[in-house]
Amino acid sequence: MSGEAGELLFLPLGGAGEIGMNLNLYCYDGQWLMVDLGITFADDTIPGIDVILPDPRFIVEHRDDLLGIVLTHAHEDHLGAVPYLWTQLRCPVYATPFTAEVLRRKLAGGDGMMAGIEDLVITEVPLGGSLTLGPYEIEFISLTHSIPEPNALAIKTPAGTVMHTGDWKIDPDPLVGAVTDEAALRRWADDGVLAMVCDSTNVFRDGESGSEATVRTNLIELIGGLTGRVAVGCFASNVARVATIAAAAEAAGRHIVLVGRSLWRITEAARVTGYLDDLPPLLTDRDGALLPPDKVLYLCTGCQGEPRAALSRIASNNHPHITLGEGDTVIFSSKIIPGNELAINRLQNRLIGLGVEIMTEDDHDIHVSGHPCRDELAQMYRWVKPRISVPVHGEARHLLEHARYARTLQVPESVVVENGDLLRLAPGPAEVIDHVHSGRLLLDGKRLLSTESDVIRARRRLMNNGVAFVTLVLDGDGELMAEPRVVTQGVFSTDEPDEAGEAALTDAAEAVRKAIAALPRRARDDDETVGEAARIAARRVLKPERDKRPVVEVQVVRI
Amino acid sequence: MSGEAGELLFLPLGGAGEIGMNLNLYCYDGQWLMVDLGITFADDTIPGIDVILPDPRFIVEHRDDLLGIVLTHAHEDHLGAVPYLWTQLRCPVYATPFTAEVLRRKLAGGDGMMAGIEDLVITEVPLGGSLTLGPYEIEFISLTHSIPEPNALAIKTPAGTVMHTGDWKIDPDPLVGAVTDEAALRRWADDGVLAMVCDSTNVFRDGESGSEATVRTNLIELIGGLTGRVAVGCFASNVARVATIAAAAEAAGRHIVLVGRSLWRITEAARVTGYLDDLPPLLTDRDGALLPPDKVLYLCTGCQGEPRAALSRIASNNHPHITLGEGDTVIFSSKIIPGNELAINRLQNRLIGLGVEIMTEDDHDIHVSGHPCRDELAQMYRWVKPRISVPVHGEARHLLEHARYARTLQVPESVVVENGDLLRLAPGPAEVIDHVHSGRLLLDGKRLLSTESDVIRARRRLMNNGVAFVTLVLDGDGELMAEPRVVTQGVFSTDEPDEAGEAALTDAAEAVRKAIAALPRRARDDDETVGEAARIAARRVLKPERDKRPVVEVQVVRI
Repeated sequence: MSGEAGELLFLPLGGAGEIGMNLNLYCYDGQWLMVDLGITFADDTIPGIDVILPDPRFIVEHRDDLLGIVLTHAHEDHLGAVPYLWTQLRCPVYATPFTAEVLRRKLAGGDGMMAGIEDLVITEVPLGGSLTLGPYEIEFISLTHSIPEPNALAIKTPAGTVMHTGDWKIDPDPLVGAVTDEAALRRWADDGVLAMVCDSTNVFRDGESGSEATVRTNLIELIGGLTGRVAVGCFASNVARVATIAAAAEAAGRHIVLVGRSLWRITEAARVTGYLDDLPPLLTDRDGALLPPDKVLYLCTGCQGEPRAALSRIASNNHPHITLGEGDTVIFSSKIIPGNELAINRLQNRLIGLGVEIMTEDDHDIHVSGHPCRDELAQMYRWVKPRISVPVHGEARHLLEHARYARTLQVPESVVVENGDLLRLAPGPAEVIDHVHSGRLLLDGKRLLSTESDVIRARRRLMNNGVAFVTLVLDGDGELMAEPRVVTQGVFSTDEPDEAGEAALTDAAEAVRKAIAALPRRARDDDETVGEAARIAARRVLKPERDKRPVVEVQVVRI
Repeated sequence: MSGEAGELLFLPLGGAGEIGMNLNLYCYDGQWLMVDLGITFADDTIPGIDVILPDPRFIVEHRDDLLGIVLTHAHEDHLGAVPYLWTQLRCPVYATPFTAEVLRRKLAGGDGMMAGIEDLVITEVPLGGSLTLGPYEIEFISLTHSIPEPNALAIKTPAGTVMHTGDWKIDPDPLVGAVTDEAALRRWADDGVLAMVCDSTNVFRDGESGSEATVRTNLIELIGGLTGRVAVGCFASNVARVATIAAAAEAAGRHIVLVGRSLWRITEAARVTGYLDDLPPLLTDRDGALLPPDKVLYLCTGCQGEPRAALSRIASNNHPHITLGEGDTVIFSSKIIPGNELAINRLQNRLIGLGVEIMTEDDHDIHVSGHPCRDELAQMYRWVKPRISVPVHGEARHLLEHARYARTLQVPESVVVENGDLLRLAPGPAEVIDHVHSGRLLLDGKRLLSTESDVIRARRRLMNNGVAFVTLVLDGDGELMAEPRVVTQGVFSTDEPDEAGEAALTDAAEAVRKAIAALPRRARDDDETVGEAARIAARRVLKPERDKRPVVEVQVVRI
């Protein structure tokens, strides 16, 4: 499973089949290297679960041969799983300064952390720096994206060099951080690049993703023309966008108020690592409350409609220091992450209901994507000239289209892989030679559950139907020592009078009593038989009332 | 609350603030008329709930003065609540033949019906027919939409005429049913129309929605060029589209196979009422299994990614008679209903994973909306010339934009209302004069719950955290007669070995025992005190293990 001598293998355990949850592995001479270890966010279909992680089982089994984890950048889908999975891997972690700072702050978050995570040491690699891990010579190449310090990794092995792009775009003026290091990419092309493992997110979009500088020009103009209060929602991790909004506020003679913890967290991480030096003072929402409407700009979290974030609280008139209404404007300088459509829609309609004017990327050019569109992909292939294209960071459709597109760009080989595919990059033509275990884990508090866990199935039953508990106390002769008790959760109302509910519980208890009484004497000695009889009797009574069957749990206590 | 003599009032209880769940009321001289009674579908945020209904409390209180319910057409968001709410209203129901047939088949569905629904009598009104209910003279005017027999209602009262459009578009060639009855609309305009209560769905879309005839031309050409198996997903209620797909199959020398119950149900309702007469024979999926790939076209339910519908079962290789793979094509002749993005995406990626080619309205002109775009709205206002525009069938943003747009079309008055607003249309300028109770009810089996119900709150706690159940049996001296029992649902795995779980349950039982033992003798006589002590002890043990707190329910049985 770890290849023959001289073979270079690529193995995605996350990201090949989804946008999110990246986990890439390379193997040369039996030595493994991990690139990124991200999460993805759950939608509402998995009860009680917010975060999904790649199942690391395969590499955990090979962790003695795992040299390290290299992080390309600080987005959650690239490093978010480190706090939860690292204790199973316990290898060195490498990142550039900003990424390292963000990760350190996550780990210091404390509460939800796994035991043993305090042993994690992050080794900082300077921008453009290099690193040697066993047979891998790794160079960090600065690209542009929607967060500071996105890196491609040029991973050189005796079998050839892989250009692992991470997430990128070509932004000629990214505002924060360096431009794309074209010279480095060309240098590696001259040296010969065996394979490029590349971002597929925007492969269906023609043209270019556009520059943060254009967004700045547009936001300055747009905000300059507004009267009343202005609130802007954006992704906290887009530090360039935060700087832009601050600049637009300043240009319009407005003070900038930061609303939401993640914005404070990320701007602090950015300042500590040398970004955002020339920002005007950032005010808290409490300070901002004293300013006149046309002198304030609120930069807010919650552009995805997150119910507890700043924008939703403002929209519900539920924020201690901020109210918006007629004459005020909310600008969404962000995209809609798939799955958040309804939540964002609800948020925007609530704001509209308050009389607030809404502006989004649908009607104004106030957002650019952080991922390469087709012209940028073509440019990257021209620069790097890989022999093999391996699309990642995409759903099945993206990977397929990216592979097709790479062929039109004269890349000799392009291979569509899915999570768990063990791809031999060298020697010989690229070929999937095996398939290893891959999958998803669900973060439940501090615990990791399998997607097949009966805990999730049980919760699904509970959330759909509620639960009834039946208590039976029997003496040595199998006689009931007390009336059966039936109580429910999530079935009948307890706050309001619920006569039908009360009656159903009484009827159910009576039905259980009769069912037990009807059992032959000997059967009453068997807890399972007694329990099953009680369960059936209770279900029968509790069902027709509601056309739903609660889960029924019976406790038989013997005295 | 029922207006002064001579006043004409409009009151939306659903549909003004959402696309879906229509419930419109008119009141003249204290006599009420209801137009439509629809549902909306829940997203995954309300545990165990699929269907949401408008809260009819206000009109239930006035049901003695409710003359009847007139249904404009057969879509769920216009008649879907009749089976669940009619028993509270018990008034006559009026509809054109196809709508009546669809409703009758729903009511015959039986299982989930409310007691007393068998008394519901549907009175059929012919297309273009009229109806007098108390002071209301109602004329049905044929429009076009995405289902047979969409009607506007011209509602004439002594205070003036309201044109209630229902859902509509202007399709010059709707394929099934009549074209828009422009003459009737103009005739009413000549007579003078006080107010138009009008569909707002597509107010943000320029131009026209397009014709079913264009979709037919395009699908015939597209399908004619395909080899391999072809499956097409569409909305079952779009009978014209079903006819189109049958025509395209025939033109391509393919037999049409209907896959999914709702397709059979709606085509039968259409045939019974005189539509779809010239359809080729429809095969079942079992019959279709015998046909060669290039001789078959599967018309399937599930274009919204519904997990139990035909397309999802096929995509999961889980359909008894249909498999698709390399060389086959699935065509989505449908739009994405907001909220279904992720489910559709999952479905399409699974199909792509099988090697199937996907075609959607993003890449081919194979779907048209059933609602009016801006040019069609302008045309309707030119035809009807109302004095007042009352936008409905839209979220806050749609209603606001529609009202703005109507003003640009020289409509003298336009009023944005929300559910519960009592709008006086005459005499005098249109004005909201009161606000009555409105809201949403949740269909839970056969029962209706309030959105604030603690049943829903309880289920949300259960689904997030699971539940633990503690049983205590005490004797007359407050001494435990048996070891405390602690069991859980949705907390620990019961299928797989879960050592931590087993240990936690044992520890929790022991903690409960100690907590009871530590209570003073007298406190042990009080069930509430004993229960609370047990709950706290159990929660403390069950929490740190998982960083989540299960709901803890304690039963204290006294012997």
